[in-house]
Amino acid sequence: MLSRISRLKLFHLQLVREMSQVPAEVSANAKAEKSKLQVSLKTPKGTKDWADSDMVIRESIFRVLSDMFKRHGGVTIDTPVFELKEILAGKYGEDSKLIYDLKDQGGELCSLRYDLTVPFARFAAMNNVQNIKRYHIAKVYRRDQPAMTKGRMREFYQCDFDIAGNYESMVADAECLSIAVEGITGLGIKDFKIKLNHRKILDGIFQISGVKDEDVRKISSAVDKLDKSPWDVVRKEITVEKGQSDETADKIGEYVKLNGSLKQVHSVLSQDPAILENSLAKEGLDEIETLMRYTAAFDIDSYISFDLSLARGLDYYTGLIYEVVTSDSAPPENAGELKKKSKNSEDASAYVGVGSIAAGGRYDKLINMFAEASGKKSVQIPCVGISFGVERLFSIIKQRIASASIKPTATQVMVMAFGGGKDWTGYLPERMKVAKELWNAGIETEYVYKSKANPRKQFDAAEKTGAQLAVILGKEEYLDGKFRIKKLGPQFADDDGELIEAADLIKVVKEKLSEINENDVNEVTRLVQGI
Amino acid sequence: MLSRISRLKLFHLQLVREMSQVPAEVSANAKAEKSKLQVSLKTPKGTKDWADSDMVIRESIFRVLSDMFKRHGGVTIDTPVFELKEILAGKYGEDSKLIYDLKDQGGELCSLRYDLTVPFARFAAMNNVQNIKRYHIAKVYRRDQPAMTKGRMREFYQCDFDIAGNYESMVADAECLSIAVEGITGLGIKDFKIKLNHRKILDGIFQISGVKDEDVRKISSAVDKLDKSPWDVVRKEITVEKGQSDETADKIGEYVKLNGSLKQVHSVLSQDPAILENSLAKEGLDEIETLMRYTAAFDIDSYISFDLSLARGLDYYTGLIYEVVTSDSAPPENAGELKKKSKNSEDASAYVGVGSIAAGGRYDKLINMFAEASGKKSVQIPCVGISFGVERLFSIIKQRIASASIKPTATQVMVMAFGGGKDWTGYLPERMKVAKELWNAGIETEYVYKSKANPRKQFDAAEKTGAQLAVILGKEEYLDGKFRIKKLGPQFADDDGELIEAADLIKVVKEKLSEINENDVNEVTRLVQGI
Repeated sequence: MLSRISRLKLFHLQLVREMSQVPAEVSANAKAEKSKLQVSLKTPKGTKDWADSDMVIRESIFRVLSDMFKRHGGVTIDTPVFELKEILAGKYGEDSKLIYDLKDQGGELCSLRYDLTVPFARFAAMNNVQNIKRYHIAKVYRRDQPAMTKGRMREFYQCDFDIAGNYESMVADAECLSIAVEGITGLGIKDFKIKLNHRKILDGIFQISGVKDEDVRKISSAVDKLDKSPWDVVRKEITVEKGQSDETADKIGEYVKLNGSLKQVHSVLSQDPAILENSLAKEGLDEIETLMRYTAAFDIDSYISFDLSLARGLDYYTGLIYEVVTSDSAPPENAGELKKKSKNSEDASAYVGVGSIAAGGRYDKLINMFAEASGKKSVQIPCVGISFGVERLFSIIKQRIASASIKPTATQVMVMAFGGGKDWTGYLPERMKVAKELWNAGIETEYVYKSKANPRKQFDAAEKTGAQLAVILGKEEYLDGKFRIKKLGPQFADDDGELIEAADLIKVVKEKLSEINENDVNEVTRLVQGI
Repeated sequence: MLSRISRLKLFHLQLVREMSQVPAEVSANAKAEKSKLQVSLKTPKGTKDWADSDMVIRESIFRVLSDMFKRHGGVTIDTPVFELKEILAGKYGEDSKLIYDLKDQGGELCSLRYDLTVPFARFAAMNNVQNIKRYHIAKVYRRDQPAMTKGRMREFYQCDFDIAGNYESMVADAECLSIAVEGITGLGIKDFKIKLNHRKILDGIFQISGVKDEDVRKISSAVDKLDKSPWDVVRKEITVEKGQSDETADKIGEYVKLNGSLKQVHSVLSQDPAILENSLAKEGLDEIETLMRYTAAFDIDSYISFDLSLARGLDYYTGLIYEVVTSDSAPPENAGELKKKSKNSEDASAYVGVGSIAAGGRYDKLINMFAEASGKKSVQIPCVGISFGVERLFSIIKQRIASASIKPTATQVMVMAFGGGKDWTGYLPERMKVAKELWNAGIETEYVYKSKANPRKQFDAAEKTGAQLAVILGKEEYLDGKFRIKKLGPQFADDDGELIEAADLIKVVKEKLSEINENDVNEVTRLVQGI
């Protein structure tokens, strides 16, 4: 340990030397030394900066989704970006190795959050929350191998809505499915399917097929790979790697091939004596029957594909599980091919392999796991939720929107001054004064940061910001107490604008802007929504 | 090193055991073991969850500030929450010890961001940004001793606006000062002062007083403590700890006592031959003269106190520096006492010791520091910015707002069903269908997740959400194709509502809601703004 500490000390000293202001007399030495400590000008692996039109689009996606969450009575919470390490332990199965830890600098051991669900359950258990509909849009962290082209990052946003509380069976579940449909269609995506399954039915099938209870989760995680691998490969994993008999594997294989509408698959399973005799599977099947009444009320049946091969990786699911897939996110040629394979509209396999854009399920024991582990008395706070994959949604939506169509700033007015001659001051403080008047009236305003700017430069600046209106201080007109108001854009090139009294400034600017913006409110949101 | 790895392995095994699903037959053992690994149900030291009305208030503060930033032409960027460790090194002087590092899990060494300024400069250098007005509202991390009551946390929000680019002297600086005033007054805080100084004048004063160049920064950081310690204590630090002569200390003492309006202090310094002869101080003084033209144009002079004792801790400032202080954040009795001490309205000492609510300054070399350190060619991208202390602003604003006055959810409509008797189903799917129709029309709607809910429970639920309107499915009325629409709240207790045709639902609900909400739009924002 000593040698490690000494090395750290050396490293620290090096940094401190870098840090301190370098007095003139030693700067030559310091420079020579500095070049050895060259800095990589980059963000850490698997992370990126967001700016420009990408940022505008992403903010609009967040707005569409959070407005929708609020429409359903959702409230938002904010938890720390890191949690005590022990809070995350034991929640993510094999993927726990992807958790980022903070360095032990004395004090508690902490890890960056891996998702928003576990912090939510910790929050609910800690505050004895009995029921809540909460949404949370925030970054999560996974030390995974990044694949930028597939939108797999080490730092990425999750966008979650969860309903916690003791309610009648399937009511909250159905609302989460409706939220999935409303969210995705609200973002202008029409061609998608919700793959749905029930952990109780799946686990019942494993029991029926002869899998021992202690093997259920690992067989489940093998089956989960069916969206990426063919049955042959998964079968081999089940038999060779995970030690199940050929007979067991074949029985599983028969079941997990089943998919279709809720009604179709429900009908097949209801006629299967093995399912009806297995108490777990029967319980799940009854819940599906209840669910069908509610998905019909919400008119979302056509989006749902009941798919017995869906297993979902996470350990904590206890009931309904679902995943939204779309062909929109596939590269065009691939999508075409996948679509050709599709036999009927309920067949979600047409969307397989292109990645899910939302996913979720029911997890009834997670909050209690925290309550019990912390020594509190046992609580039953069932939960169900849906998480939108913002990065993938972003890629799909970005393809649709030409970034040229996005206004780069919110600026509406450019305050300009025109004049000339020796005595011409350029009216900089005067432009500032006018800008301030407009700011105070809530109007987005800029001016060029230059004492004497020629008209060309001022028009260029206006174009760069996307301003729609110019307030012009003419050299003589201004002294007469008048401003010139001119609409901007190529269609108004020949328009000299209108001369107005300085006292009418705010009134006239507001009128002109409302004329211009009449059909233009929330332009980006409209684009994002595909309207 | 081996022993360290083995210990880690052991720890990992322990976690894996915790993690894996516990088969029934071993659960007794596992339980006994689990109790040893009890989990603390808390957030890490110096962090907290945000929820309920606190969250609503904070979101409104962010909205007020980001709307203001956009009004000034600002665009937002988003950088990763951690940066390469070397990016942060050498930027924070003595405070570098407060940086959180990520654990070395293979790959790059990373640290959580300490502020938003250094990531911004890294972003600008990396992308060869020539000019930008950017705002960024995000969390930063400091491994400081937390003091919750003072609002000092280890995880906290910063809210920054910066202007980068080569512009005429003091134009962007003046806009940042105006943004400080607009931001703070926009949040309903009237009683505040901007303490302002100029690093060139301050460094000139140190030269005049006989401080050697290599000692300037450390004497500056001693002077920076004058807002917390009396001159005697700071003088001792300068002489005893930092080895300056008594004469030097006394000269410094004379200057740093100076404060008043821009005009007053500028006038005193302009008559001081020592200042006029020192090229650094003279340069700063000329810039102040330019600034005064612009602060007059923005009409913000009355908020500014030119205070030669303001030094600011960070190394990277090169010009104007400022800090916004208010007595609002002091405990009432203390604030009273401080106010009594105030002699004139320009004397910012009345606000001393209560903590700054915004701060910033000019830093012309930070972007170039990154460009050069990465081997790029030297660039001159001057910057100036302002950062709002959101946690402190939050505390001040929260004191003003009774949380009872905040609507807990966005819900506007509660869909209810009234009926009874044996054949009564409770109309749950029917209520869902109506809710869906309202959601599709963009209306915030909820219903009780229960097949048969009695009227009392449904009204209670409506009250809990703050819904203003009930859409009631009466047992018989519904079968006749009619809904009952009723305004909620004690003032409408005796009102039976209005019976409408089902086809008119959306139209009537929208009309009623616009009647109710006419004067109520953005209620929280209005509260936050103190209007």
